[in-house]
Amino acid sequence: MFQIKITVVGKTLASWWQSAEGEYLKRLSHYAKIKQVFVKEEKMAEHKTLPQIQAIEAQRIEDSLDSNEYRVALVKEGRQLSSEELARWLEKLANQGISRINFIIGGPLGLPESFVKQCDYQLSLSKMTFTHEMSRVVLLEQLYRGFSIFKNENYHK
Amino acid sequence: MFQIKITVVGKTLASWWQSAEGEYLKRLSHYAKIKQVFVKEEKMAEHKTLPQIQAIEAQRIEDSLDSNEYRVALVKEGRQLSSEELARWLEKLANQGISRINFIIGGPLGLPESFVKQCDYQLSLSKMTFTHEMSRVVLLEQLYRGFSIFKNENYHK
Repeated sequence: MFQIKITVVGKTLASWWQSAEGEYLKRLSHYAKIKQVFVKEEKMAEHKTLPQIQAIEAQRIEDSLDSNEYRVALVKEGRQLSSEELARWLEKLANQGISRINFIIGGPLGLPESFVKQCDYQLSLSKMTFTHEMSRVVLLEQLYRGFSIFKNENYHK
Repeated sequence: MFQIKITVVGKTLASWWQSAEGEYLKRLSHYAKIKQVFVKEEKMAEHKTLPQIQAIEAQRIEDSLDSNEYRVALVKEGRQLSSEELARWLEKLANQGISRINFIIGGPLGLPESFVKQCDYQLSLSKMTFTHEMSRVVLLEQLYRGFSIFKNENYHK
């Protein structure tokens, strides 16, 4: 069974995103052991530049990572997969013995490029910029969809 | 001022999507006259094929359209725009005197190809398949983002 971690910067504030997340986390729990990890968001302040804030948040993410997990950075410049390709990709990882996957979503400022490059995979949900809160829900829904496709295919084999 | 219509098949059922839609409709109302049009979803039944259901729904959409609006079909195979490109595209339409835009999102089965082809533009939110309810929220959020970019740029001109 997959062990999925979703690492995010900052708590989800809007109640509707919280509800949507809760729903998809529940649905996903039928397919995978799933856990959200919240990393503290760094407050904006006049004496801090945006790259400094990004770097502080990236360091906090680094500190939260386990050594044996497959790291997937969510960035709009990443690889675009259709839902079917996402399912196939999950299957391929499973076949390679990779079952611990950490999906990492930056805060409002996004992830710094140096961090993104170090990850094992760069995944794009869209060419469009999504709010970080919306990205979480879209990712959860796509993982749920991916696992459903994956499971259904195995049913029919 | 833009007059935006979002034509969708079937009511939004999940309460969190309803809340998210409500929030973005409210925010968008600062930038455009915005209206959601709900077209009845055709029930699945054994004697109806999926293309038949799609065709019935497409006919209902056709019947709801105004003659002088710019029709944008939302399909994953459509044109992908970054959020900045979306803003630029809205600006370009405005410069062409096009201010009445209808964004059309299919039901669970999607829009039939024959209908999609007839539209003035085919827009893709992602290569991934989104639920039709999630597509509505993502579109609203992107329109809000697009108008914000558009307006901010004009501020700085």
